Amino acid sequence: MSETFVIAQGGGPTAVINQTLAGAVIEARKRHRGARILGALHGVRGIRDGNFVDLSDLPEEQLRLLGATPSAALGSTRDKPDAAYCEKVLKGLRQTGATAFIYIGGNDTAGTQQILNDAAGGDIAFVHAPKTIDNDLEENDHTPGFISAAEFVATAFASVDLDFRALPGIYVGIVMGRHAGFLTAAAAAWQFDDESGPHLLYVPELAFSPKRFVEEVRSVIDRHGRCIVAMSEGVTAEDGRSVVENLVPRERLEFDAHGNVRLSGGDLGMAVEQALRDGLPGVRARVDTFGYLPRGNAGMINATDAQEAFDAGAFAVEAAAQGGGSVALQEEGGVTRIRLVPLANVAGKTRHLPPGFLSAEGTRLAAGGKAYFDRLLPRRLKLAKPFV
Amino acid sequence: MSETFVIAQGGGPTAVINQTLAGAVIEARKRHRGARILGALHGVRGIRDGNFVDLSDLPEEQLRLLGATPSAALGSTRDKPDAAYCEKVLKGLRQTGATAFIYIGGNDTAGTQQILNDAAGGDIAFVHAPKTIDNDLEENDHTPGFISAAEFVATAFASVDLDFRALPGIYVGIVMGRHAGFLTAAAAAWQFDDESGPHLLYVPELAFSPKRFVEEVRSVIDRHGRCIVAMSEGVTAEDGRSVVENLVPRERLEFDAHGNVRLSGGDLGMAVEQALRDGLPGVRARVDTFGYLPRGNAGMINATDAQEAFDAGAFAVEAAAQGGGSVALQEEGGVTRIRLVPLANVAGKTRHLPPGFLSAEGTRLAAGGKAYFDRLLPRRLKLAKPFV
Repeated sequence: MSETFVIAQGGGPTAVINQTLAGAVIEARKRHRGARILGALHGVRGIRDGNFVDLSDLPEEQLRLLGATPSAALGSTRDKPDAAYCEKVLKGLRQTGATAFIYIGGNDTAGTQQILNDAAGGDIAFVHAPKTIDNDLEENDHTPGFISAAEFVATAFASVDLDFRALPGIYVGIVMGRHAGFLTAAAAAWQFDDESGPHLLYVPELAFSPKRFVEEVRSVIDRHGRCIVAMSEGVTAEDGRSVVENLVPRERLEFDAHGNVRLSGGDLGMAVEQALRDGLPGVRARVDTFGYLPRGNAGMINATDAQEAFDAGAFAVEAAAQGGGSVALQEEGGVTRIRLVPLANVAGKTRHLPPGFLSAEGTRLAAGGKAYFDRLLPRRLKLAKPFV
Repeated sequence: MSETFVIAQGGGPTAVINQTLAGAVIEARKRHRGARILGALHGVRGIRDGNFVDLSDLPEEQLRLLGATPSAALGSTRDKPDAAYCEKVLKGLRQTGATAFIYIGGNDTAGTQQILNDAAGGDIAFVHAPKTIDNDLEENDHTPGFISAAEFVATAFASVDLDFRALPGIYVGIVMGRHAGFLTAAAAAWQFDDESGPHLLYVPELAFSPKRFVEEVRSVIDRHGRCIVAMSEGVTAEDGRSVVENLVPRERLEFDAHGNVRLSGGDLGMAVEQALRDGLPGVRARVDTFGYLPRGNAGMINATDAQEAFDAGAFAVEAAAQGGGSVALQEEGGVTRIRLVPLANVAGKTRHLPPGFLSAEGTRLAAGGKAYFDRLLPRRLKLAKPFV
């Protein structure tokens, strides 16, 4: 039987999501000579609207260069299809004669695949290939895209800490992350020594109190003369809402198709600056919003991340032959293994920082977090100890 | 006569200011066997207070590693000495028996050297070695630290442009730069093709109108479906004051020792977000403040920049033998030459974007700007053209 693969990309772009695309295309052509391979533009939206690009004969050299290019080459979408939308997507898939649909993305993308799989009659294999800088997929030890983004964050904080040894003060870097603190915790992956920043981590998993925050900063300033803070965009207040929701007047809040409040590093940043000005007057404080900078930076693509993303794409083709499911990166004895798991195990679920990852008070890496980053992101920077 | 060199670092750290320190120490030891070399901690403040570290016998291997480490290893300062402060610095220098004082920094640092030189009796050679990511020193084609910071900015904007091809919207990246737009203009150095972002540049040299800004963004959105903007922290309003000063209530403004208003990317960013929400409602807009990220990033140190910074430090030792002055990186037939110029030519002066650097409306690189970056920062990224 002749095979037709439809491939699409969903959610936020990463540094290596195109590696997964390249891996899938190259593997599909290797396994299924003469296979038809269509890329859908802007995720399921492209399937619904009939916008495809034919990848069947794209030269491998071009595919390899595409893989090495950050962001989603096919375009992405934040659409979360309802039943009617799904019907149109299924119709679009059938019109192409698709035998498999590989959708590269996060837990929302896996959710879409589960809905489509349940609605279809079993004639199409639905495969979810993992991707997210948030590193928040269940069943996965880590996700393609995370290591590169984590390396950006680790490098930035190691560098900013050196900067603030030279000219002391308070620095707060606000890092993407709505529900999971992995990327923010990565700020501490390459701490230089025991006195190194970031001195304080604030992640969405733990309630954030502006009052306690100022006291913790004050205590670090007293000890080290400077204080470097890594804070997740999604830090939540004691009432369980995001701090941003507590800070910003309701009429100014924006919501996405999933009903999530749009997190703005800017709003949080201004509130943090104000809290520091009020609580620690006269101390130089600077807040930067990292925002999109870590998530697909062409200057910082981690080689392991790139290879794993490619391999996950290739494995997705094998997964299609097995009837579909979610591709997962798991850890076994310190080595990453790629396995197939049920879509339901991943779809719509969020993995959080595990116990033992952070210290008891929640603001430093504990042994678990340190071991995790030592394995995933061995230190690459070789730096001299400054005189100050 | 036995030589004693005092070396210090001033102003904002960079990725390569320690290369200049290493170059000076290694050259001083080569030229003057047995020379005493003292590093002053936190600039002139260390000289005033007698805080020195002895670099005379630091192994060259350690010096080389120090050179490859970003930020100012000796610590820095924003102190601008008045006559009384200068008297104490001169006294501190004489107590060490200094025959030369090499001060690595920007135009304020050159200004300090000029004051000290005028106050001293000619027994000490005062040398200014250039450093600034702002690239705003007179007599210099470019300054050590700029190329690395520019490469960070160019890489980030090339990457963000790819990101916004996948998920369209408006992106504004706010980049350091109080008076000169060089670093912001670097955002356009690695534009991918004619449709690439950044589509709009806003620099301090040209008056910024929020109303015109929104119209220019709207026009780009109409053409390309997305709009990427690079904006200097120091953009000025039509009245000549910084936009931040116009936006922020007077009682919240902070000023430094030089009477300059403290620029906050956050304040500007929030105002820009609000202007976009009001003027282009319903269009996804995101503002990130780059802040400190470009200026000393250990993951992005440009090799040419590092070598030139080292050479500038070595040349400062030669400059001391000639009686002092300011070390300048000049261009001759496409090649960088290091020369000695009078302190007065650099001290306290600001170099701005030259005519022909930006397009007539001021929001794109013109031929002059393109040629400048093609020479200083040849494109290193090899990227595939996305399908969207």
